[in-house]
Amino acid sequence: MCKIKAAVMDKVNGEIKIEIKEFPEPALEAGAVMLKTIYSEICGTDVHLSHGQLAEVPYPIIPGHINVGIIEKISRTVCDVEGNPFQVGDMVTFLDVHETCNNCWYCLVAKATTRCPNRKVYGITYSVKDGLLGGWSQKIYLKPGVKIIKLPSNLPPIDFIAGGCGAPTALHAVERATIKLDDTVIVQGSGAVGLNAAIFSMLSGASQVIVVDPSSKRLEMAKQLGVDYTIDASSGGERIAEALKLTNGRGADVTIEASGNPKAVSEGMNMTRDNGTYVIVGQYTDAGDVSINPHWQINKKHLDIRGTWGIDYSHLYKTIRLMAKHRERFGWHRFVSKIYSLDEVETALNDVENLQVMKAVIAPNGD
Amino acid sequence: MCKIKAAVMDKVNGEIKIEIKEFPEPALEAGAVMLKTIYSEICGTDVHLSHGQLAEVPYPIIPGHINVGIIEKISRTVCDVEGNPFQVGDMVTFLDVHETCNNCWYCLVAKATTRCPNRKVYGITYSVKDGLLGGWSQKIYLKPGVKIIKLPSNLPPIDFIAGGCGAPTALHAVERATIKLDDTVIVQGSGAVGLNAAIFSMLSGASQVIVVDPSSKRLEMAKQLGVDYTIDASSGGERIAEALKLTNGRGADVTIEASGNPKAVSEGMNMTRDNGTYVIVGQYTDAGDVSINPHWQINKKHLDIRGTWGIDYSHLYKTIRLMAKHRERFGWHRFVSKIYSLDEVETALNDVENLQVMKAVIAPNGD
Amino acid sequence: MCKIKAAVMDKVNGEIKIEIKEFPEPALEAGAVMLKTIYSEICGTDVHLSHGQLAEVPYPIIPGHINVGIIEKISRTVCDVEGNPFQVGDMVTFLDVHETCNNCWYCLVAKATTRCPNRKVYGITYSVKDGLLGGWSQKIYLKPGVKIIKLPSNLPPIDFIAGGCGAPTALHAVERATIKLDDTVIVQGSGAVGLNAAIFSMLSGASQVIVVDPSSKRLEMAKQLGVDYTIDASSGGERIAEALKLTNGRGADVTIEASGNPKAVSEGMNMTRDNGTYVIVGQYTDAGDVSINPHWQINKKHLDIRGTWGIDYSHLYKTIRLMAKHRERFGWHRFVSKIYSLDEVETALNDVENLQVMKAVIAPNGD
Amino acid sequence: MCKIKAAVMDKVNGEIKIEIKEFPEPALEAGAVMLKTIYSEICGTDVHLSHGQLAEVPYPIIPGHINVGIIEKISRTVCDVEGNPFQVGDMVTFLDVHETCNNCWYCLVAKATTRCPNRKVYGITYSVKDGLLGGWSQKIYLKPGVKIIKLPSNLPPIDFIAGGCGAPTALHAVERATIKLDDTVIVQGSGAVGLNAAIFSMLSGASQVIVVDPSSKRLEMAKQLGVDYTIDASSGGERIAEALKLTNGRGADVTIEASGNPKAVSEGMNMTRDNGTYVIVGQYTDAGDVSINPHWQINKKHLDIRGTWGIDYSHLYKTIRLMAKHRERFGWHRFVSKIYSLDEVETALNDVENLQVMKAVIAPNGD
Repeated sequence: MCKIKAAVMDKVNGEIKIEIKEFPEPALEAGAVMLKTIYSEICGTDVHLSHGQLAEVPYPIIPGHINVGIIEKISRTVCDVEGNPFQVGDMVTFLDVHETCNNCWYCLVAKATTRCPNRKVYGITYSVKDGLLGGWSQKIYLKPGVKIIKLPSNLPPIDFIAGGCGAPTALHAVERATIKLDDTVIVQGSGAVGLNAAIFSMLSGASQVIVVDPSSKRLEMAKQLGVDYTIDASSGGERIAEALKLTNGRGADVTIEASGNPKAVSEGMNMTRDNGTYVIVGQYTDAGDVSINPHWQINKKHLDIRGTWGIDYSHLYKTIRLMAKHRERFGWHRFVSKIYSLDEVETALNDVENLQVMKAVIAPNGD
Repeated sequence: MCKIKAAVMDKVNGEIKIEIKEFPEPALEAGAVMLKTIYSEICGTDVHLSHGQLAEVPYPIIPGHINVGIIEKISRTVCDVEGNPFQVGDMVTFLDVHETCNNCWYCLVAKATTRCPNRKVYGITYSVKDGLLGGWSQKIYLKPGVKIIKLPSNLPPIDFIAGGCGAPTALHAVERATIKLDDTVIVQGSGAVGLNAAIFSMLSGASQVIVVDPSSKRLEMAKQLGVDYTIDASSGGERIAEALKLTNGRGADVTIEASGNPKAVSEGMNMTRDNGTYVIVGQYTDAGDVSINPHWQINKKHLDIRGTWGIDYSHLYKTIRLMAKHRERFGWHRFVSKIYSLDEVETALNDVENLQVMKAVIAPNGD
Repeated sequence: MCKIKAAVMDKVNGEIKIEIKEFPEPALEAGAVMLKTIYSEICGTDVHLSHGQLAEVPYPIIPGHINVGIIEKISRTVCDVEGNPFQVGDMVTFLDVHETCNNCWYCLVAKATTRCPNRKVYGITYSVKDGLLGGWSQKIYLKPGVKIIKLPSNLPPIDFIAGGCGAPTALHAVERATIKLDDTVIVQGSGAVGLNAAIFSMLSGASQVIVVDPSSKRLEMAKQLGVDYTIDASSGGERIAEALKLTNGRGADVTIEASGNPKAVSEGMNMTRDNGTYVIVGQYTDAGDVSINPHWQINKKHLDIRGTWGIDYSHLYKTIRLMAKHRERFGWHRFVSKIYSLDEVETALNDVENLQVMKAVIAPNGD
Repeated sequence: MCKIKAAVMDKVNGEIKIEIKEFPEPALEAGAVMLKTIYSEICGTDVHLSHGQLAEVPYPIIPGHINVGIIEKISRTVCDVEGNPFQVGDMVTFLDVHETCNNCWYCLVAKATTRCPNRKVYGITYSVKDGLLGGWSQKIYLKPGVKIIKLPSNLPPIDFIAGGCGAPTALHAVERATIKLDDTVIVQGSGAVGLNAAIFSMLSGASQVIVVDPSSKRLEMAKQLGVDYTIDASSGGERIAEALKLTNGRGADVTIEASGNPKAVSEGMNMTRDNGTYVIVGQYTDAGDVSINPHWQINKKHLDIRGTWGIDYSHLYKTIRLMAKHRERFGWHRFVSKIYSLDEVETALNDVENLQVMKAVIAPNGD
């Protein structure tokens, strides 16, 4: 392959446009790895990027933050966390978050690495001028220090990409939720984060998992995954009543917001029992304000609320192991509605935005 | 004493009125204790009661939930948690919260006893028909099972009542805050809960304690207690800027809301650092809604928010021990602006409502 | 039924003997409930009782602490934690731990109710002089305040008793272990506590559960339950090597000791990874000392060790719900090797002691 | 200065010997910093090094892990965690632990960085062949990435070095202890770790801090620091009785082992209350085994035991801030018994070993 094709998203006169461009194969610096892309995903964040709704994005960029590919070249020995060297031909993914600095107050004192001000994210905060640093490209350049993970042989790439960025994000949310055996869990929203949060809640030993969403198709998928109940979110105010009815009138022990709708935040508090835990993970972009009553909804409720931002290496590492172990039970590949070529990324973005698909996957080198 | 005088708060045709009434001395059932009241307090809750702003209050009531008195009669041996029997003449206080049932789902499964639906509170949820169950009375009837604590000899009753209900409530809030050595803590509000929260934050090893309040008199008291900085809350929008300036631009590790103002909730989130902890304890009554942005203020902030309701025995027990140990350092008695007689309770309520006093104390048998 | 038969364990001249005695039907005090016993269990504790190895047992006693029965009489309305009144004919169990006082320092300040010095246990610390307070009896007298739970219709009594006291004890241990998704868990011992600990570890989302035991029959049962690996404890020193081999040379994230053998404690530390968690729950009686090296095994390992004593209501409540939900997957009834009549308790004790049976069940009114 | 003098500890034919050697001034690689040493310390670890008791030490080495010095040269801009660049002339210290890899399973998945197998420690695990990487030297070479902290102007270097490595180690132990307001804390041992653990326990709001040690001189120092009680450890078996007497017969809420004596571990368990917390931090080297009874001392006690290994950046950072804030109250400089020149290190080692001094400090360039 002489030239590498990639979909470049640019902002010209305030308008976002996407164009397929060709790039020469870059040389590898010491510690770098070149990946031939097998799959990248298109998620809600990419839709936001295509509307210029994220702050401080260095357009033009190559989107695609969660990716899977085959190692084509290695500059020198590069090892995984167990000390095993990667080989050309390995099927791998990598943590999109890079350059968490391990040198600032947030990394070293607060130990809140997802709030490190120096972190960079492949497919989002790197410019195309920085290199092939996004997955909507035939090849991806893994800079020295990028944290690479080999897919286990029993986790096909299509299952992994079907989980996408939603899976490790959901794992982080469930970690924050500290679900205990026999808990009742309500998940608001059944997109990629919501469905995976429901899966990880079931795996955590919740006795009852309830998913709330307006899409009957997605609720159907939730049921196939094995959740105990679904609540049709198009039912308006009765959603809360229904949630309470399913939980002895108390609300859930744990509620996980994965909807992206600010109003869900007030509703979720009311769906959670007194002294329960409410995890907010779906408000990835600024979709507006919400009015709450701090007396009834937080103070008197003795409620715990936990915002959840980003992921670190451990979330991706554990997600992959859990997906491999439970692949047959949950069949993640079913989330993938359609696989698009590089030329179809705009169609794919439209399909995601219009909820035509559950999970849109891009195969830059063909499927 | 033939007759017992008490201030009875009644609701007649929707109007609250207070009258001094006389009651005969009741007989003691087995396990009950009769207290001669030394001090009771008037706190913000009593002001709310005097406006009929609390739900489900069984008027007529005898207000006064935190009290200190001398044991006058004991029906039979009654012991403290160490197994030491109380004696006639002991100077004691008692947990206002009674009948936490130890039998319901919240008590036994969730272990969230302050949310037990069966709990009763002296001075608030008992009617005068139930007996002398409030502190604005010359005597207080301690029902069997009421949890009594002897004041240590080095904690004079005036210091204890000066802390009032604010002290154990603040202890509970600080417990929820899980302050670590060297943390920076912001306390919003410097009423009884706020000042005690500042005290307990200092005792927890916070390196920097900052108090925000509009009253210069209360901020002066905060400074005398030893807080590191005060922020004049009347300074408007610059409060947040000032808080950030004092905290390296990051905000506090822990913020404790003790203001009662719903708007403080949004502001407090902005005064807290990413992945910090925000404890909400001041929203004791419904003072309205507040608008927040869940993306910026919770999700991206990776914030922990913890509502705090009520107290249990441990909070009162530890508060008393801590007050005794640190009495000289903090001099709680200075919080007491004025001691009122039973006949002056209406004046006292007005003074509290108009912020004329920091802590109003009632001495039903004279001081 | 005119007379009630019960197996009474007595200590005569230092010798323990068991005799079937007849008792008249007692009258019910207010709040009491009379149970017709369906099943009681014989566990390791009963073997210790039969050897006089427990301290402060008020012989003569009626053993049998975990029991299931049908309500025969109710003195007056008695409700469960949800406020639902029990009915004659209900199939129920009850928490053997009674009279946790909710009045002492451990209950109220430390909130460590299983260390309450006033707690009593049915079948162990009540004398036959106190009444029919053990399950090796045709009827059991439930004193006022005993915490009763109705078995769900989808949990047959034989499955419940098969879990026995081991199931809620294991739940408590797993709660102390704070297992996280993807953790590796080693369980030492595969008696009732060990097997249930393995089950609850799997339900908690452990990716790898390893059981260590010298009995091939029990390891076979562990495999049928779905554990990932078993280690034959009769393999001597190689046990540790095998455990390390299965865990990337690091040891388990969590190890749960459920063996009763003091030497297992040292071994379990070595099977746990640095900064892992080691829960000790199997040392229910004093079986001797063990030598450890605090430098290598605790300090340098940065290890967390957590002793686990007894159960409270929440453990029994959640165990029942979890058993009902997962009954088909784990088929607890398979643990029951044999059902004995009251007359056969001595045989049953022998069979338990000689490891002839996995779980011995007594049916005092016939099966 | 043409030549740099350093004390080199070597192992020749199995014998440890110390010699003062001269080294040329090394060139600085990019990111490196050269320090002129003001003070280094001699701690118990150095005594162990001088007996060859630590495993895998790459003799010859330059000992001295905790140091304070003045920046003499900076290769290029080097910043602290707040992003402030260091200047020539700054009085600084640095984290002795270097090269925690942020790339291995322990760093990234377990987040147990003090157990990272790749970490190196100045003064212990670097050979003199690697450079001037220890504090018993007129200059110290800070490799790129070494985490440097400027001493606040209100923390004189003598106070900082007086805390030495014991202070951040104690902070780590106290962090593991999760002391709550009003807790009772027993500290076993009053060396540098023990005394600082007592200080940090007091700062954490413990109501009662008790120190156990055989040295009356050190107990005297503990009293001067403000601890509530001391127990003379030379009193033999009565130590435990005394500890129980001081704690209502229950034992401490938290006990911190900082003695280095394996037998203290068994004793400390008995000094801790049921469901209390026992932190083991003093077993830094292998001083032998200890026999414990897992039934009485862990299982039935429902005890939490927490080993504590090493420190990370946060512990040093917070220690310095806390020392600066509380310098007047605790007067750390009083711990320093004597300041030695480089030529006197052997005397200093002897004095430390024979407990002639509390804290021995070395001033390689004169005091």
